[in-house]
Amino acid sequence: MTKPKEHRLSIRIDLASGGRIGPGKIALLEEIERSGSISAAGREMKMSYRRAWRLVEDLNHDIGAVVEAAAGGVGGGGARLTEAGRTLVQQYRALEQAASTTAHPHLDVLTEIIGPRRRK
Amino acid sequence: MTKPKEHRLSIRIDLASGGRIGPGKIALLEEIERSGSISAAGREMKMSYRRAWRLVEDLNHDIGAVVEAAAGGVGGGGARLTEAGRTLVQQYRALEQAASTTAHPHLDVLTEIIGPRRRK
Repeated sequence: MTKPKEHRLSIRIDLASGGRIGPGKIALLEEIERSGSISAAGREMKMSYRRAWRLVEDLNHDIGAVVEAAAGGVGGGGARLTEAGRTLVQQYRALEQAASTTAHPHLDVLTEIIGPRRRK
Repeated sequence: MTKPKEHRLSIRIDLASGGRIGPGKIALLEEIERSGSISAAGREMKMSYRRAWRLVEDLNHDIGAVVEAAAGGVGGGGARLTEAGRTLVQQYRALEQAASTTAHPHLDVLTEIIGPRRRK
């Protein structure tokens, strides 16, 4: 059985410092943790090696180091999340879950007002 | 006194139907309600007349009518929000407020991990 599609929240954190953290960067970090490689994570997310590196650099700049070289070095070896990187992912996902639960009654009201001309 | 800048959430609703509702469209609706005109609202938000109309058309398509002609017609007269349009704005702002309150402890943890290399 296919679960019916629901309205979903997409959450971006606009940091006081000017940086932005959204679902794309968080998913990339999760893939880096899973695959142990920035380039493999980028491929999995259908983005160029250059773009994946750029997003990691942005995060390392805005937050502090979130990705570091694993044994062998980033070039030859792999990459992994730092403690700060893992905390960032955990807090983002917890925030996303909590916000979605809180938003539920409001999304239900929106379902009631959405008219017959909505997209299929 | 200037209040110190804080991390903020930016929330987008991805509708089950495929449409998207984010802070830009909501702010545009609020300006239409305030000014009584799509073109005036667009100018206030520094967007072209064409873009403001396109966003309103997207919303009217995804949600059902949220903006309607006021006395005199949209061309000669003005525009105003429908009941559904007002409900959309109210629910979005309530959802945003509730989600931000819920997110607060998670944003505080992020503040703790943000390192010294953050942007000024």
